[in-house]
Amino acid sequence: MADQHAAPVTASAPLSRTEAVPVVPALRWEDLPEGPVIVLLDQRRLPAAEVELVCTDVPALVEAIRTLAVRGAPLLGVAGAYGLALAAVRGFDVDEAAELLAHARPTAVNLAYGVRRALSAHHAALKDGAGAQEAAAATLAAARALHREDAEASERMAEHGLALLQELVPGGGFRVLTHCNTGALVSGGEGTALAVAGAAHRAGELRRLWVDETRPLLQGARLTAYEAARAGMPYTLLTDSAAGSLFSAGEVDAVLVGADRIAADGSVANKVGSYPLAVLARYHHVPFVVVAPTTTVDPRTPDGASIEVEQRSGLEVTEFPGSGASAPLAPLGTQAYNPAFDITPPELVTAIVTENGVVSPVTEEGLAELCARSRSGNGMMSI
Amino acid sequence: MADQHAAPVTASAPLSRTEAVPVVPALRWEDLPEGPVIVLLDQRRLPAAEVELVCTDVPALVEAIRTLAVRGAPLLGVAGAYGLALAAVRGFDVDEAAELLAHARPTAVNLAYGVRRALSAHHAALKDGAGAQEAAAATLAAARALHREDAEASERMAEHGLALLQELVPGGGFRVLTHCNTGALVSGGEGTALAVAGAAHRAGELRRLWVDETRPLLQGARLTAYEAARAGMPYTLLTDSAAGSLFSAGEVDAVLVGADRIAADGSVANKVGSYPLAVLARYHHVPFVVVAPTTTVDPRTPDGASIEVEQRSGLEVTEFPGSGASAPLAPLGTQAYNPAFDITPPELVTAIVTENGVVSPVTEEGLAELCARSRSGNGMMSI
Repeated sequence: MADQHAAPVTASAPLSRTEAVPVVPALRWEDLPEGPVIVLLDQRRLPAAEVELVCTDVPALVEAIRTLAVRGAPLLGVAGAYGLALAAVRGFDVDEAAELLAHARPTAVNLAYGVRRALSAHHAALKDGAGAQEAAAATLAAARALHREDAEASERMAEHGLALLQELVPGGGFRVLTHCNTGALVSGGEGTALAVAGAAHRAGELRRLWVDETRPLLQGARLTAYEAARAGMPYTLLTDSAAGSLFSAGEVDAVLVGADRIAADGSVANKVGSYPLAVLARYHHVPFVVVAPTTTVDPRTPDGASIEVEQRSGLEVTEFPGSGASAPLAPLGTQAYNPAFDITPPELVTAIVTENGVVSPVTEEGLAELCARSRSGNGMMSI
Repeated sequence: MADQHAAPVTASAPLSRTEAVPVVPALRWEDLPEGPVIVLLDQRRLPAAEVELVCTDVPALVEAIRTLAVRGAPLLGVAGAYGLALAAVRGFDVDEAAELLAHARPTAVNLAYGVRRALSAHHAALKDGAGAQEAAAATLAAARALHREDAEASERMAEHGLALLQELVPGGGFRVLTHCNTGALVSGGEGTALAVAGAAHRAGELRRLWVDETRPLLQGARLTAYEAARAGMPYTLLTDSAAGSLFSAGEVDAVLVGADRIAADGSVANKVGSYPLAVLARYHHVPFVVVAPTTTVDPRTPDGASIEVEQRSGLEVTEFPGSGASAPLAPLGTQAYNPAFDITPPELVTAIVTENGVVSPVTEEGLAELCARSRSGNGMMSI
C-alpha cells in the first residue's frame, strides 16, 4: 500500500443519544503542517474498531477505495474530488491522478463524476491563466463544494422523505425496514435512506428501524447497526430472509432503500436483496421507497435490462467475511452465485425521493423532469 | 456431556458421483462387544470434518439433540426411538428415558412421536408378559421399523415429487431452488425435498440445484451443499436474498422445501426464509412445492396462526456461527429478531408431496384425506 497509515481514533466520544451522524466522520480533508491529507474512517474495521486511515497521496486513496475502506456511491464522489485536490495541492500529476481514481471502481458512477468535476475546475483555472497553486486551490474548492452539496442533498432528501412517510403512513410511529448501509458512512452528509430514518427519529416518529443484515458483506449488521446505535435509534437487526415474517406480521410500515444506479425508466439497481423486499412490500401493500440523489439517475441507461450487474467473487459467500483467517462456510470447491446488485422495476417502486423532491408514481417523464430541475439549478449538465 | 465420545471417521470413502446418500449415515445403531451404541454423524462439524459421535446412554443422546449434532424432523423421530431402545437394552429406566428424550427439543413433533412409538412397543411387550430382554428387543424392533418406514417414506416422496416436477415443468431439465437442509442428514432415508432433487438427478433431469445458504445457521451452505457435492449434483450456492435475482432472470423452474409442521388447513411452518420464497414464486408464476411425510401434518393445529414460532437467540445473528471463538458481526448490544420458522399460507403452496401422494391445490379436505389414507395403512392412528 502507498503512503497510507492507520491511526486509532483517540478520545472517541461516548455514544450519544442525539447525534445524527457518527462522531467520527466517514471522510475529511485535513491540513497538517507537513501537508494536506485525506482522513478516512476505515469501514472494513467497523463495528469492532473505529480506526482512521490517513491518505497522503492518490495511490493510497485508490487502495482504500478498492478495498472498501471507503464506500458508498455519494461518498465515493466526494472522495474522488478530494483525491484530485490532494494531487493538485501536493504537486502530483493531476490528469494521471484523475485516471487512477476514476477507475478505482469502474461501476461507481458517482466516483467518476466527482473526479470529473474536480478535474474540470482544475482545467478551467489553468485555462483562465491561474498558476499551479491557484489551480490547486480551485480544485480543492470544487471538492469542498461537492462535499457541501452532498450534505445539503442529504438534508433535503431527509426532509422530502419524512414528508412522504407522513403522507404514506398516517398516524406516525413509523416502523421502517432498510437494507444495506445508506447513512453518514456513504455520504458527505447523513446519507440517503438512513437520513430519512434519522429525520423521523429526531421528529420522534421512528418507532422501529428494522435492519437487514445484508449478506454477504453484512453492511446492515456492521455499518447500519453502528450508525443506528450512534444515533440512538430504536433498531433491531434481522437476517435478510426474516423480513418476510415481519411483513407477514404487519410489522413494517415502509421500506426505505438507497440506489446505486437508476435507469431513465425508473428501474433501480441497488444492493442484492432489495428486489425481494420490493416484491414482499407489494404483496403486503407496504410502500417501497427509494432515496437517492439525482446524480444517481443515469439517463444514458434506458431501462433495467441495460444495467450491467456486477458479479462478485463467490468467496464472499463461501467464506466468512472479515479480516483475519478465513473460515469456510461451505464444502471446498462450492461455486456461488453472487450478484452485487439486483434490479427493481419501476412498477414495484412506490416513490423515488431525491434532493429535488419526490416522483410517485415512478415514470420516465416524472424522473426526467425532476433531474432537469436539478441540473438546470446547479449546472451539472455542463460537466 | 454424558457418555458420548467423538471418533473421526477413518477410511472415509472418496466422493462418489453416483452416491444418493452420504457415505457416512446420519445415524446408525451398532452392536459392539461392550454393548449397543447409537452412532451419529456430528452435523455441527460439517462440512469441515466428518466426525462420528458415539452415544452409549440417553443423556449423551439428549445432549446431541439439544446441541444440534443431530437434527431434522424425521431423523429426530428415529433418534428418539433408538434412544428408548438403547435405554431398554442397556437396562436403564425406560420411562425416565422417554421423558428426557421427548423434551430434548420441545417443538420437534417427530421426536415425541418416535419416543411414543418405541415406548408403546415396550409397554405392549411387558403387558403381554415379556421379560426385560424381550421387551427391549421389541423396543429396538419398533425403532428399526420406524427407521425403515422413514427411509421408505423418503423413497415414495421422491417418486411422487419427481412425477409432480415432470408434470409441472414440461421438457425436463429442472432448475430447482431449495432452502435449508432436507436430505439424508434429516432422515432415515434420503430426506424430503432434497430426496426429490436427488431422484431428478439420478433420472438425468436435474439441470441445476440452487442452494440458499439459509441464514443464520447456514444449513444450506454447510449441509445441503455437502450432500449435493456427495451426490454429484450440479449445485450452486447463493445468499438467501440473491434468490430474487434468479427468479427475476427466469432461472428457477420450481422451489422445493421441507416442513417442520403442517397445520390442518395446509399452512406450512418451515425454516425462516421459506415464506419470502413462496411470495417470490407466486409473483413469478413458479411452483412452490412442500415435501414432507404425513407425520408432519398436525391435525390438532387448525391453521397457521395457531403455530407457535420458536424465537431463537439473537446471538445466532449477531455472532458468527461456528465453533471456536465467536466473532461479533454487529455492534455490541445489538438486539436481533430471530424467528426459527415462518408460516406459508396454503394459498401460496402449489402442492404438498407426501409418501402417500400429492395434494394440489392444498385444501384442508385434501390433506385430511391423504393423512387418513396413510394412518389407516400403517396404524399410526393407534399410537
